[in-house]
Amino acid sequence: MSEPSWILTLTCDDRVGIVGAIAGFLASRDGFILDSQQYADLETGRFFMRVVFKSGGRRFPPDTPALIAAFEGVATLLQLDWSLTEASVRPRVVVAVSKGSHCLNDLLHRRQTRALSVEIAAVVSNHESLRALAEWHGVPFHHLPVSDDREAQERAIEAVIAETDAQYLVLARYMQILSPDFARRLEGRCINIHHSFLPGFKGAKPYHRAHARGVKLIGATAHFVTGDLDEGPIIEQAVERIDHRASIDDMIRIGRDIEAQVLARAVEAIGERRVFLNDGKTVVFR
Amino acid sequence: MSEPSWILTLTCDDRVGIVGAIAGFLASRDGFILDSQQYADLETGRFFMRVVFKSGGRRFPPDTPALIAAFEGVATLLQLDWSLTEASVRPRVVVAVSKGSHCLNDLLHRRQTRALSVEIAAVVSNHESLRALAEWHGVPFHHLPVSDDREAQERAIEAVIAETDAQYLVLARYMQILSPDFARRLEGRCINIHHSFLPGFKGAKPYHRAHARGVKLIGATAHFVTGDLDEGPIIEQAVERIDHRASIDDMIRIGRDIEAQVLARAVEAIGERRVFLNDGKTVVFR
Amino acid sequence: MSEPSWILTLTCDDRVGIVGAIAGFLASRDGFILDSQQYADLETGRFFMRVVFKSGGRRFPPDTPALIAAFEGVATLLQLDWSLTEASVRPRVVVAVSKGSHCLNDLLHRRQTRALSVEIAAVVSNHESLRALAEWHGVPFHHLPVSDDREAQERAIEAVIAETDAQYLVLARYMQILSPDFARRLEGRCINIHHSFLPGFKGAKPYHRAHARGVKLIGATAHFVTGDLDEGPIIEQAVERIDHRASIDDMIRIGRDIEAQVLARAVEAIGERRVFLNDGKTVVFR
Amino acid sequence: MSEPSWILTLTCDDRVGIVGAIAGFLASRDGFILDSQQYADLETGRFFMRVVFKSGGRRFPPDTPALIAAFEGVATLLQLDWSLTEASVRPRVVVAVSKGSHCLNDLLHRRQTRALSVEIAAVVSNHESLRALAEWHGVPFHHLPVSDDREAQERAIEAVIAETDAQYLVLARYMQILSPDFARRLEGRCINIHHSFLPGFKGAKPYHRAHARGVKLIGATAHFVTGDLDEGPIIEQAVERIDHRASIDDMIRIGRDIEAQVLARAVEAIGERRVFLNDGKTVVFR
Repeated sequence: MSEPSWILTLTCDDRVGIVGAIAGFLASRDGFILDSQQYADLETGRFFMRVVFKSGGRRFPPDTPALIAAFEGVATLLQLDWSLTEASVRPRVVVAVSKGSHCLNDLLHRRQTRALSVEIAAVVSNHESLRALAEWHGVPFHHLPVSDDREAQERAIEAVIAETDAQYLVLARYMQILSPDFARRLEGRCINIHHSFLPGFKGAKPYHRAHARGVKLIGATAHFVTGDLDEGPIIEQAVERIDHRASIDDMIRIGRDIEAQVLARAVEAIGERRVFLNDGKTVVFR
Repeated sequence: MSEPSWILTLTCDDRVGIVGAIAGFLASRDGFILDSQQYADLETGRFFMRVVFKSGGRRFPPDTPALIAAFEGVATLLQLDWSLTEASVRPRVVVAVSKGSHCLNDLLHRRQTRALSVEIAAVVSNHESLRALAEWHGVPFHHLPVSDDREAQERAIEAVIAETDAQYLVLARYMQILSPDFARRLEGRCINIHHSFLPGFKGAKPYHRAHARGVKLIGATAHFVTGDLDEGPIIEQAVERIDHRASIDDMIRIGRDIEAQVLARAVEAIGERRVFLNDGKTVVFR
Repeated sequence: MSEPSWILTLTCDDRVGIVGAIAGFLASRDGFILDSQQYADLETGRFFMRVVFKSGGRRFPPDTPALIAAFEGVATLLQLDWSLTEASVRPRVVVAVSKGSHCLNDLLHRRQTRALSVEIAAVVSNHESLRALAEWHGVPFHHLPVSDDREAQERAIEAVIAETDAQYLVLARYMQILSPDFARRLEGRCINIHHSFLPGFKGAKPYHRAHARGVKLIGATAHFVTGDLDEGPIIEQAVERIDHRASIDDMIRIGRDIEAQVLARAVEAIGERRVFLNDGKTVVFR
Repeated sequence: MSEPSWILTLTCDDRVGIVGAIAGFLASRDGFILDSQQYADLETGRFFMRVVFKSGGRRFPPDTPALIAAFEGVATLLQLDWSLTEASVRPRVVVAVSKGSHCLNDLLHRRQTRALSVEIAAVVSNHESLRALAEWHGVPFHHLPVSDDREAQERAIEAVIAETDAQYLVLARYMQILSPDFARRLEGRCINIHHSFLPGFKGAKPYHRAHARGVKLIGATAHFVTGDLDEGPIIEQAVERIDHRASIDDMIRIGRDIEAQVLARAVEAIGERRVFLNDGKTVVFR
């Protein structure tokens, strides 16, 4: 528990010797590997790796900056896109909501029971309704209503992200479509929960359309937001079985549980640095 | 086991008194209800019911024709769309296949172990490849190749259906698109298995597109065939979890198991007369 | 939405004519059946039925007492064990907790979003830790510590149940074993969530034992409490897939979600009066 | 497809530098890593690794013996328990059955469609019933009835294993309990499918007991056979949802599908060399 560990994530063009070089670097510094996962995408030619390690002896660098400095040579040589952080440092996120509370409540409860791998730095909303919930959990709440000037509102969200030094914006049933520019500026840093098993029922009112279509499964999808609506890289999906008796209201009710679970799993994966972008798709290590 | 039972299925416009009339009829004839399920669709105003019953005493009609004759008065009064058959009489089906054997093998093995609720009267195929499998199971196999004259081939399939007195045509990975006319003539009597969780990835090569889209679930859908491709009423669906490591070939392999299971469940439901059409959707009792 | 409806539940020895009598009664009073489910257990010879209906015309009794009075004749004749209540009247429950908040938080959040079919009348606990959570939701919280006199504490719980006119006691990760007498007095009215897929890992520390045994699935079970520990009738179960990498802590964390979901589903079923006791087992209509 | 690849599996006491040494060895021989998974069990102190690689250049050993010879130095140094085989070489298995055909049919069908990662060298049975099925698939069938001399029958099974040079014995619903001696001689090489979610319903007639207990999930477990009945290391498990309406026969029927799927997944994992024994448990890489 108390012994510190580090997470190294990296991606690069695939070729012979990467794992050897990384593992060799760690071995030479007495780094003890706790977990290592990797994936080589033969189609895109990209390589992805996530290594968790701790100190295994006296040659281990004394602190994180020293560790990073030591690794920089290897990283430059292999032309890595990489990050190295202490495992206990949790990424900071801003959560955006509207009126629906189920996803926010789920995230805040996980936070409260110390089961969440991210730090919720603030909640922003275009409504006042969820202020009490956020503030009861001791999380700052910012009411940023959407007026005629949508751009101003989005700039205000970005200001909260900047002030709180947050890495991610999590749309937890935030019922506004981001402007393409805003989506682009947040590319790879903004996660949304969509209430359908995408690509089925892209767009608005998926439960209504699922009901009309008579599907036997309803689902939810957590994905990165891109300028292209509901087309961003998928992080996590799940479904629940329904039958002909399910009304639209039943679907909405059943769906809430799936949405909260799927978003929570995606946020956990982000927090544990298990998610990588891979050309319109994701690599999500376990 | 050996004691005979009957299945009554019916649908009609919903109003007060239907269940009372049906149950009253059965009670007056000493019919003992083994199972009864019903569903009232408040949107379409249609009522659906399936009752399984056996003889509970001496006022019970002596045979199926007498039972049907006795019920006809009630049915006319209530303007029912109905059917009444002995439970042990299994609907006959013709199975259409191409080269992929997994769905056919699954159905034939269930048949062999007496676990199938339909009678497989014949197998038709546009290829010769699965003749040995069908014939080993003692099921007649008809090779009906698709030439320039697609209509003639479809007429040949219909001839097999007519000769074998089959109620249903089951497309068990039959890789031909039915002509709209053929589909229309078989409306409500033709079931297909599609290798995606519809409406996601309608049309051809769904696993290729699922791979390209990076979904985390793949699935299969059994549905009635209509003139509108992949838009027919859904009977059954299931999905399986995959991750970024799944290649298209992996998806195809994993998908085979889902397809076989979903089709088997749909065929079982049809055989047990648990499936009703409801205006573009289905009612499937358990 | 606003139109009133009623739920009739009943159980009796199975024989010819029950459904007919019930449906006939409803038809004669212009009762319009919205949903009806029934089950005949051929082994125990018991019959179970749940009917939801509304007024379908002018012969319908003017209020619930009149409806009950009208039905009493049928009920006596058929020797029914029955209940008839307005559907909008939700059963009242007392929730017992210890320190773990995940199940309570889930129930309270469902209550807050009006998605819960029971009324949470009070929370009782042998610890103070969850007072703030309960009270924030406006639910009375009673701290009833367990001292040497366990019987006194259990009497205090019963007093809360009596004062709040609650029908059920829901043990939402309440970490005390009820005395056999207390369990017996609450038979059929007390629900527990056990953190294993019973009968696997009965008793204490199921995740530790699941970890030691190397299972690939962990689960949770909601059941009625009886004097026989972890042997009461099962209401609902679910599992989640794990692999060799899951530590005991991981299992506990993953398990929390399953526990909350399974308990919520069981409580919903109770609230909707879909659960019947059947000789050591349950009948749970959908 | 056609380009050869190799699978290296190894286990050893965990310490700094193992991954580095393995990856370094491969890099020095121009081995290109296609997939690598590892797991360090902090409780047992054991390390497990599976690497799939191909030739990435001209320093790669010319054939498998040369590759093995080259690796032996590293293996000795690290005190590895290891195996290195060409990926296309599938392990040979003998399948033991009794009268139930569903698992055997499933395995043979997968074999026929080239979707199976093991080679089925022979089928042995204490009954004649499944001879036709095995022989239709071109697999030798040995009828080895169980007489008073159980030991002789087990020696006969071992003779088939020896003659066919099989690595594994797969009990595909083989309804005989192996003698403790036989089980011990096959330790780590014999897989069984049990028709319950172990440790629930250990022993005989699990569906009957599941029915009596009123569980809402039934399942199946594939595990290594040890001298301790139904206590061997678990490889794979799955469950299916049932409700109060499921009779014992329904459970047996539903269970067949789960059993066949779970056994198939376990056999696939064995064939792909993804399964390791770990002190009463298993490590199963994906």
